[in-house]
Amino acid sequence: MTRRRLHLNAFLMNTGHHEASWRLPESDPYAHVELDHYVRLARTAERGTFDSLFLADGPQLWSNLAQRPASALEPLTLLTALATATEHIGLIATASTSYNSPYNLARKFASLDIISGGRAGWNIVTTAGAEAARNFGLDAEPAHAERYARAAEFLDVALKLWDSWEDDAIVADKAAGVWGDDTKIHPPRHRGKYFGVEGALNVPRSPQGYPLLVQAGSSKDGKSFAARYAEAVFTAQQTLEDAQDFYADLKARTVAAGRNPDHIKVLPGIVPVIGSTEAEARANEQVLEDHIVYTHGVDRLEGLLQLPSGTLELDGQLPADLPPESSIEGAKSRYTLVVELARRERLTVRQLIGRLGGGRGHLTFTGTPEQVADAVEEWFTLGAADGFNIMPAVLPSGLETFVDHVVPLLRARGLLREEYGPRQTLRARYGLPRPANQHVSPAAGSPALARV
Amino acid sequence: MTRRRLHLNAFLMNTGHHEASWRLPESDPYAHVELDHYVRLARTAERGTFDSLFLADGPQLWSNLAQRPASALEPLTLLTALATATEHIGLIATASTSYNSPYNLARKFASLDIISGGRAGWNIVTTAGAEAARNFGLDAEPAHAERYARAAEFLDVALKLWDSWEDDAIVADKAAGVWGDDTKIHPPRHRGKYFGVEGALNVPRSPQGYPLLVQAGSSKDGKSFAARYAEAVFTAQQTLEDAQDFYADLKARTVAAGRNPDHIKVLPGIVPVIGSTEAEARANEQVLEDHIVYTHGVDRLEGLLQLPSGTLELDGQLPADLPPESSIEGAKSRYTLVVELARRERLTVRQLIGRLGGGRGHLTFTGTPEQVADAVEEWFTLGAADGFNIMPAVLPSGLETFVDHVVPLLRARGLLREEYGPRQTLRARYGLPRPANQHVSPAAGSPALARV
Repeated sequence: MTRRRLHLNAFLMNTGHHEASWRLPESDPYAHVELDHYVRLARTAERGTFDSLFLADGPQLWSNLAQRPASALEPLTLLTALATATEHIGLIATASTSYNSPYNLARKFASLDIISGGRAGWNIVTTAGAEAARNFGLDAEPAHAERYARAAEFLDVALKLWDSWEDDAIVADKAAGVWGDDTKIHPPRHRGKYFGVEGALNVPRSPQGYPLLVQAGSSKDGKSFAARYAEAVFTAQQTLEDAQDFYADLKARTVAAGRNPDHIKVLPGIVPVIGSTEAEARANEQVLEDHIVYTHGVDRLEGLLQLPSGTLELDGQLPADLPPESSIEGAKSRYTLVVELARRERLTVRQLIGRLGGGRGHLTFTGTPEQVADAVEEWFTLGAADGFNIMPAVLPSGLETFVDHVVPLLRARGLLREEYGPRQTLRARYGLPRPANQHVSPAAGSPALARV
Repeated sequence: MTRRRLHLNAFLMNTGHHEASWRLPESDPYAHVELDHYVRLARTAERGTFDSLFLADGPQLWSNLAQRPASALEPLTLLTALATATEHIGLIATASTSYNSPYNLARKFASLDIISGGRAGWNIVTTAGAEAARNFGLDAEPAHAERYARAAEFLDVALKLWDSWEDDAIVADKAAGVWGDDTKIHPPRHRGKYFGVEGALNVPRSPQGYPLLVQAGSSKDGKSFAARYAEAVFTAQQTLEDAQDFYADLKARTVAAGRNPDHIKVLPGIVPVIGSTEAEARANEQVLEDHIVYTHGVDRLEGLLQLPSGTLELDGQLPADLPPESSIEGAKSRYTLVVELARRERLTVRQLIGRLGGGRGHLTFTGTPEQVADAVEEWFTLGAADGFNIMPAVLPSGLETFVDHVVPLLRARGLLREEYGPRQTLRARYGLPRPANQHVSPAAGSPALARV
């Protein structure tokens, strides 16, 4: 049996995950539109033998322009460009089931999977927020449960589309003048509540069959969805105990959904802030906090908590009478995490904004490379994680520091591959089997159906 | 005044534009999913100092699998990969206004324009056919006029989105902690018949402002649309006289729409079939016709003419009582072109299929390099074309032959650039000004508004 190894994903975001990162002297405030910036990050992650890199997304302006970089290149477009600049690393794009149509999106992911040689992944999001909804003809955001119902139907249709060509549908018989075998094409003929999709995809089945399916919502609806569909899960957890609970719960739900719990990889997000001494790491963190514009932080926190503008005071606590998660139609699990963090540590609004500035609710690991490696190893070995979503506070420097100083320690401890070896698909990197086509019965000796 | 020069666009399609091209011994029947095939084609076109390359598209399986390669990578995805493999050539993707949403599509084109350094173009199509409609929840294709009404609103919204950031919206004031100037953001706040789009795009204004706008429908609705929006037009014309009429008509309509007629470039499609002698060229053409499977051709012709299956006989003429174009809801101008071609030349169904096999209604120029160059020069100088959409019957060989043998003649005659020179945007290659932002009044000395 091969040794269990960490899976590492590099979560790339403009100048870094800390909201004030763009203000540092080293940062390029135009990084969000610089292909070269992203090529450098992707190659750094590949030097660190990461499994994958990842881009978040939402189809709306990300904030007021005054606050911070509010834009990003469209993820599938950017990842296609990065596919040609890299060889091994997986490429995970966020795309919304609420604001796309299955035919177009399934085709784009199949195309990226073909162009990248089987390295595409899809972070499936339902997209919270009224701002996105209003860019797609709606007056308000659809209810949380409605978004997830649409997402489930979207996935079912997308899987039908990706399986609409059997792997050997092209016969290429030049002499007979027969290019393909129409009996190996399976049109979805889908008529559901949200979508009608009659015909087969116009791209063949891709190297992975379909992209690695990734999910990141940790609400009850989100976890049910993940148990049914997801192969990797990004999650925000503030304590080892919470992370262990989440891990055990998600694996149990996956078993209950009839799937192998090893076929869903749990990757908590961490924000490493590294120094050659603990004091230097703390000082690096302080520099970032000193660059926060707190009035912007108050605006955003009021938005997240759905409070009227002007409710929060910087040196006060959160109001005692916040509504329960069940009444929130936006990002439910983020809401609860932030409220619990503030209550548990009795943080003022100012302190809470400082804590959220780094990772928007993800855990910050501040310390020396050894301390960060220790924390990673602890979570990995104590049943809290199959790997990590690495969210550097500042980019590119934070990723370079992690790769140059933490990765060698993880390799020395046998937790991370030394090199990639031969080219593999993203799904193979994550130790997952290639999914069988739902229209093909598994022949004796062929891999068992991974899902469906 | 600079000399008027030809604009050349390379229309890339799998193994070539002839329906039987995939059957030739030299052809790769998997070319449709091979990035390297397209990289080779793009670099060949760049060697020929073409202005641009172009991918057609429709969101449905392109034919029965038996007939011919029925699939294609999604164009924006493929062109993004080609952007990283080329330096100068424009990249024109087809995308449908009927089956996309403006926010997503405007963002993808802006992203490609940024990644490619201002080389993106959009071939705007309304997408004929019930098969596509049924992949997007509709039972039948929307009526022709309805599709064009939606297209016009789509363009208006897309232009608002591309202009929603002024060029200097990012101020990047690190000391003050102000990244951008919110007064330079102009949300569309659009509520129309087909679309509601409230907010600004989440990508800055791109190098070209927006992609080069290309159009290819030659129906009355299509020409009205082109006169209003298009900067380049692809068209199928079978005779010099028809091409001159179309050219004059479109330029006049453009003037009537209040635009400069030099700001719309007319590019008829031609299928060059080249040999070192005229006899060799004819023999090359005959080899292709010999590979046509005529039963497939009958199926497709019956589909285009909206006739019941089994109506046409291979050695008979078209029926005398075909309906007028006005009753056709699909590809109107293609319908009329095919019917007129058959009538004018008294072609049997078999002969018609042979003629359409090469270019689906586009003109085939068969001959020596000199003869092809003569025909190109004649159309260009006699008011029939500003350039050509080059549609090689077989790829990659047909494009290589054109670049190696016809391009040097065009250069020697002073009709085509010798080299690209410094990097330019696609719009600059076509001799068009960068469009001003609709929210910014042109200051004294700045380029005049190109449109709007």
